[in-house]
Amino acid sequence: MINKLVAKIKQQDAPIVVGLDPMLKYVPQHLQDAAFEEYGETLKGAAEAIWQYNKAIIDNIYDIVPAVKPQIAMYEQFGIEGLQAFKKTVDYCHEKDMVVIGDVKRGDIGSTSEAYAVAHLGKVQVGSKQITPFDEDFATVNPYLGSDGIVPFTKVCKEEKKGIFILVKTSNPSSGEFQDRLIDGKPLYEHVGAKVDEWGRECMGDDYSYVGAVVGATYPEMGAALRKIMPKAYILVPGYGAQGGTGKDLVNFFNKDGLGAIVNSSRGIIAAYKKEEYAKFGEKNFAEASRQAALDMIADINGALGK
Amino acid sequence: MINKLVAKIKQQDAPIVVGLDPMLKYVPQHLQDAAFEEYGETLKGAAEAIWQYNKAIIDNIYDIVPAVKPQIAMYEQFGIEGLQAFKKTVDYCHEKDMVVIGDVKRGDIGSTSEAYAVAHLGKVQVGSKQITPFDEDFATVNPYLGSDGIVPFTKVCKEEKKGIFILVKTSNPSSGEFQDRLIDGKPLYEHVGAKVDEWGRECMGDDYSYVGAVVGATYPEMGAALRKIMPKAYILVPGYGAQGGTGKDLVNFFNKDGLGAIVNSSRGIIAAYKKEEYAKFGEKNFAEASRQAALDMIADINGALGK
Repeated sequence: MINKLVAKIKQQDAPIVVGLDPMLKYVPQHLQDAAFEEYGETLKGAAEAIWQYNKAIIDNIYDIVPAVKPQIAMYEQFGIEGLQAFKKTVDYCHEKDMVVIGDVKRGDIGSTSEAYAVAHLGKVQVGSKQITPFDEDFATVNPYLGSDGIVPFTKVCKEEKKGIFILVKTSNPSSGEFQDRLIDGKPLYEHVGAKVDEWGRECMGDDYSYVGAVVGATYPEMGAALRKIMPKAYILVPGYGAQGGTGKDLVNFFNKDGLGAIVNSSRGIIAAYKKEEYAKFGEKNFAEASRQAALDMIADINGALGK
Repeated sequence: MINKLVAKIKQQDAPIVVGLDPMLKYVPQHLQDAAFEEYGETLKGAAEAIWQYNKAIIDNIYDIVPAVKPQIAMYEQFGIEGLQAFKKTVDYCHEKDMVVIGDVKRGDIGSTSEAYAVAHLGKVQVGSKQITPFDEDFATVNPYLGSDGIVPFTKVCKEEKKGIFILVKTSNPSSGEFQDRLIDGKPLYEHVGAKVDEWGRECMGDDYSYVGAVVGATYPEMGAALRKIMPKAYILVPGYGAQGGTGKDLVNFFNKDGLGAIVNSSRGIIAAYKKEEYAKFGEKNFAEASRQAALDMIADINGALGK
């Protein structure tokens, strides 16, 4: 799947991923009204509203954007019905040939980690049958529990040719509380980065590993250090746009081949219609505003990369 | 909810929690057969099998065990249908007045962490309505992202009088890869423990905080150090039984009041019928075997505590 991701990024000349993190407050009123009219102000109504919202955005970006990253928390908060909307979104993105990165940040140990890997990337055995539960292409994983939490994922990745992105240096202001603390003279995130490189060398695609890393756009100098530590890891870069990162901050995350990083924007794309810059589209044309915002983001990043 | 947990532990004289982590291979054949006959070898069939398995165990332990800890990964691997079995299990435990610790190990930042907190401990706003999605009493949380990942949970805990257990030192062999590394002369887990204490003092129940910690039974000397660093945190202790911890290893995790820790056993209780010790019950009476194993565990721990 890393090969497919790289191929799509090259083909569309767009090293970006759109975060499908549909908070209800982003969903245009007319979609909320229609969903609540059909299902009431229920979890099912909320799930229908976010599904219709996602679908319109996907329809407007799939030909220019290689991948989406649905944040499962935004669906999980609407319970079972919300997770049904998550699953519908994953399936629909596959119909549109988009790569799906499940932003699930799971992490546990042994058989439990394996259950998460199976849930999101693999197949579960039920009697004599093997069934695919959620079917993302990649999942994000938390490293705090060490190899016991990661290896069950890499095992499934090898079997299924799927991938993971391990949290290394997150984009949030307090990420330094633990991640930046010095161990033997180097910050914790560099130690995690070195393990990402080690785990990843066991699961290589053509040029990059099935094991990637998450490094926030808000920390470009750390991105440069981590780029060197993990040369074969694709870096998933959150924090562009709404969290403050810009195109020029991102150059450090790429390799000399112009590859090696995929930059995420969530509300900057999906709720573009709420920004002054794209207000001209109007709320009803929110999905066209998303398309324009995606095109502008691609141009910004490619510009910074000198393309 | 920490007050209720402490009250139930005192009342039942049982500082234990049963991990409802139903792998299909633990579910007796007759329950699997019945479920597959009704729903086929499908996710729904698997979900029905684990739900019937859980229900029988709950019916046999609710009067002697204060709390359960369903591990959501074991349900998530069966997709939407599995999560429906998770929700049914949570609701049924509440009917039986058991405290439910959702072992979800979630962790993200800002609005995303808040969405997880709402999903598992709070209420979600849908139009003019507030709806309860999964409704556990406690959730386990991963600290790697720092305060930005924790504070959205403590906010919901304060509103809902619910609680969290933050991963500090996990029970698995490789937990030391990052957690034991020295920072300013102290292992990372002690730094996390100090933050647990700090976060927890903002959310106090009567004697203990709404913010607890996870510390593995397999590391008793670290338990002693952490007990001092976080005097007001309840410690959730996995790793008893199957993972190698025994009653005498656990004394360090308790305070002098005989409280402050709750010890988890999962397959040691729910799959007791597979152990030689309890084989006399037979597979059909698996839930009675679970009851006996729970009684034996309580006696072992209370014995070690000199009760």
